[in-house]
Amino acid sequence: MTNFTGSNFIAGEPSQLGTATFTSVNPRTKQAGSVQFHNATTEEIHAAVVAAADAYEQSRNFSAIKLASFLEAVAAEINALGDELLQTADMETGLGLPRLTGERGRTTGQLQGFAKLLLEGTYVEAIIDTALPDRQPAPRPDIRRMRFPIGPVAVFSASNFPFAFAVAGGDTASAWAAGNPVIVKGHPGHPATSELFAQAINRAIVASGFPAGWFSLLQGESVEVGQQLIQHPLLQAVGFTGSLRGGRAIFDTAAQRPNPIPVYAEMGSVNPVVILPNALATRAETLAEGLVTSATMGSGQFCTNPGLVFLLDSADSQTFIHTYRDKMAARPTGVLLNEQIESGLEHAVASTQSRPAVHTLTGGYVVDGDAFAYANTVLQTTGSDFIADPALQTEHFGPVTLFVTCASSEELTNALRALHGNLTATIHAESTDLGTAQPYLDVLREKVGRVLWNGFPTGVEVVHAQMHGGPYPATTAPATTSVGYTAIQRFMRPVAFQNTPDALLPDALKNTNPLDIWRIVNEVKTKDAVS
Amino acid sequence: MTNFTGSNFIAGEPSQLGTATFTSVNPRTKQAGSVQFHNATTEEIHAAVVAAADAYEQSRNFSAIKLASFLEAVAAEINALGDELLQTADMETGLGLPRLTGERGRTTGQLQGFAKLLLEGTYVEAIIDTALPDRQPAPRPDIRRMRFPIGPVAVFSASNFPFAFAVAGGDTASAWAAGNPVIVKGHPGHPATSELFAQAINRAIVASGFPAGWFSLLQGESVEVGQQLIQHPLLQAVGFTGSLRGGRAIFDTAAQRPNPIPVYAEMGSVNPVVILPNALATRAETLAEGLVTSATMGSGQFCTNPGLVFLLDSADSQTFIHTYRDKMAARPTGVLLNEQIESGLEHAVASTQSRPAVHTLTGGYVVDGDAFAYANTVLQTTGSDFIADPALQTEHFGPVTLFVTCASSEELTNALRALHGNLTATIHAESTDLGTAQPYLDVLREKVGRVLWNGFPTGVEVVHAQMHGGPYPATTAPATTSVGYTAIQRFMRPVAFQNTPDALLPDALKNTNPLDIWRIVNEVKTKDAVS
Repeated sequence: MTNFTGSNFIAGEPSQLGTATFTSVNPRTKQAGSVQFHNATTEEIHAAVVAAADAYEQSRNFSAIKLASFLEAVAAEINALGDELLQTADMETGLGLPRLTGERGRTTGQLQGFAKLLLEGTYVEAIIDTALPDRQPAPRPDIRRMRFPIGPVAVFSASNFPFAFAVAGGDTASAWAAGNPVIVKGHPGHPATSELFAQAINRAIVASGFPAGWFSLLQGESVEVGQQLIQHPLLQAVGFTGSLRGGRAIFDTAAQRPNPIPVYAEMGSVNPVVILPNALATRAETLAEGLVTSATMGSGQFCTNPGLVFLLDSADSQTFIHTYRDKMAARPTGVLLNEQIESGLEHAVASTQSRPAVHTLTGGYVVDGDAFAYANTVLQTTGSDFIADPALQTEHFGPVTLFVTCASSEELTNALRALHGNLTATIHAESTDLGTAQPYLDVLREKVGRVLWNGFPTGVEVVHAQMHGGPYPATTAPATTSVGYTAIQRFMRPVAFQNTPDALLPDALKNTNPLDIWRIVNEVKTKDAVS
Repeated sequence: MTNFTGSNFIAGEPSQLGTATFTSVNPRTKQAGSVQFHNATTEEIHAAVVAAADAYEQSRNFSAIKLASFLEAVAAEINALGDELLQTADMETGLGLPRLTGERGRTTGQLQGFAKLLLEGTYVEAIIDTALPDRQPAPRPDIRRMRFPIGPVAVFSASNFPFAFAVAGGDTASAWAAGNPVIVKGHPGHPATSELFAQAINRAIVASGFPAGWFSLLQGESVEVGQQLIQHPLLQAVGFTGSLRGGRAIFDTAAQRPNPIPVYAEMGSVNPVVILPNALATRAETLAEGLVTSATMGSGQFCTNPGLVFLLDSADSQTFIHTYRDKMAARPTGVLLNEQIESGLEHAVASTQSRPAVHTLTGGYVVDGDAFAYANTVLQTTGSDFIADPALQTEHFGPVTLFVTCASSEELTNALRALHGNLTATIHAESTDLGTAQPYLDVLREKVGRVLWNGFPTGVEVVHAQMHGGPYPATTAPATTSVGYTAIQRFMRPVAFQNTPDALLPDALKNTNPLDIWRIVNEVKTKDAVS
């Protein structure tokens, strides 16, 4: 077993210059762990970013093949951590071994998927417009562009995905794949898990001959660690997954820098679900069962948790709500990640309950006991109240569902129009409902990054077509995704070359197309050489 | 001839609710025009954005063909304005008829180019990953994504390009092409030119059957008009071309909104030029001539004006600088756009001259007379002074060149490393210099959107491969371009559809590929139908 050091890891070396420490807490027992983890100091933060900038001098010219082999090496080192990784994360998060085993597979899978993207090579998006020397009134120059890495990237780990949105998670994988060093601010809820990842990554760095500054891990429970990191002048971009409050604070700090940098923050979402009458009439029981499973998965601690369900008011829908309430009440209460999540959830639900038009059907309280836990909760309001009260769109990060019953399809449409930005929206309907569904789908499309049909929003496929993003407050960068392979674009920047000799061009732009990638040459997609 | 109304144009209708007015000023005579233009009021700004949001309800589902025909109609209406447009703009800007004739061609050309992009159709970037129903442990759903318009866009006109970066310029064309209504804040330097464009656009709107709110023009010389526009809750994105100060103010305001929105601001740039010894030895005379032409083009009022020239110190380079100085002194003084440009330039040059290590070789003063004018100016400093003093990177918006002579290639490299973000960088070298040039090119690539070889940065081709952008302070969005056809991506947002029936999918994502566009289907680029 690993002897945890409680250190930060700065460019491959353990470092604990500071005296302020914190411990992780087992959410099943509320007992603090024995290892003292050291909050990164100003000096350590500075050293990490400077080391990343130094590493970038080399890594920005690394070939896609070299980058891919590193990603593969990290995946292998994560697997080599074996059961200890699962057990450590389980002790720090209470998420359970089956879920964590699946999440580990997703994490290594997306590292390998980015490696595959790199080897295929088209991701640099090469565009070539050749010269027109005889054009009047002036010749047209040869212009060629492609994407390059952007520079040192800071990644903030999420609490609820200790693998897939954490130290070697999707943001880190996509920033690395783009060719950038990464400084991770580990989540204070699972510092031992972070340390295991840091050790695995550092082994991969050594084995792959990468510069040590290509990765650093900063531990910290204080807001200051993250704030200082974002303000460092050499930092070029930020990836974040977490709360609206945390993401907005980071966005604000980055926007106020002398040189602002992009912040890709994936924040809160209530993930509206619309259930149309024929779906209710045809399969109320399986729908209720599926929705409860989705709403309680990971104790409801998913950014894609279906927190809002819209129904047209009817006898069927009232029956459905009661069925749903009974199922939620009957499901065992899950463990929450930590005390902050529990108290935040308690506060958020109480705030919603205090609105005049909200009724509590079940739950609505912290469950006393050894573990951090909150009762599975079902609330109800009406479409007109929802439209009138933006506070009813506040995320409850836990197993909480708010039903919104609408008096008419017009009220339902207006309620959907009133939605803020979200990661997902879902419509449940039968094939006979397509005509009815179209206008709802049109409205929802404007509000989200992903629309689901007859599905449940939890579970986000890591594929090329994925769009895990959406308008504010779902994210701070609505045109980007944090899941799937186009996520790499967040950490790249196009540069054009005008009339530049072939010998000085990057391989992706050379006449012969030595990388055999797809390019757009004079407006035509082709793998052919430029003649 | 047009009888100018001095109005704002809100959703097709002239509007002058306010009492505060301003006039344009002929920069050749410093005489104010006779037409009083009305600053848009809070009420007019609100009406324009609400009308745009209403228009968006229709336009977001307009076909690419319909959008393309509108862009073509605008181009035709601009041409139909005939000589009056050129004469009006010349009177308001002093840019001269030949330049304005060329700029008109570029402006209609880019509208037509975006129309062509729409008709080809691949710009929506359709990606399809089909279902894997037998995958273990869970089936993979069908996920398909494409780009959609983002919503009402505000565009801020530039002073120095009254056509190509103004009312129907590149930002507007790309936002429209994406399917978004546009509210233009006209530049107060050329309000009559703006009014002519508004009338042409409104004719195209009527002829094309577009909603009236698809376009509004807000006139205004006050900062408040723009600030109120950016703060409107229904606005979704901002395009801006202008000064660092103006762009940063807009960026800050947008970042502080309750729901921040993206700002694509193209701001200042000093466009470094590096001249290597063999180029100097081989073609000093033509180089000096070409550089003077580029530096004085449009009286130096180009965002791509070559403001900084780096040389290795030698007898050749001292000779070159003296040749350049003599040519600059001999070129006729151009007319500046307006009093603000003149006083801003005077202040910026004086500030640079006040630095201890800067020598003035020629110019450095406002030219008295009928016109706004500033002497062609050449300044000189050393590489070590440049490295030590970030203030020497301040843009002088006018015909001003600062030579930086470096004692060694190492000092030159360090000076280039010290550069802030820029739109362009240029290297002049001979084919024998490729080995020497590579490290400089590597450094410059990190600093700019476009690298030129043996060229001059003024003149930006409107092609697919163009990258007119760069790290801050060149822009606020380093991964985007404001010129060329990928500019459309700024005003679009991807949405993914999961397991959605073919009948409800947009044409670009339907199985049969009815638009015959390139798509990425299960990681393969193809125009084939999904089977």
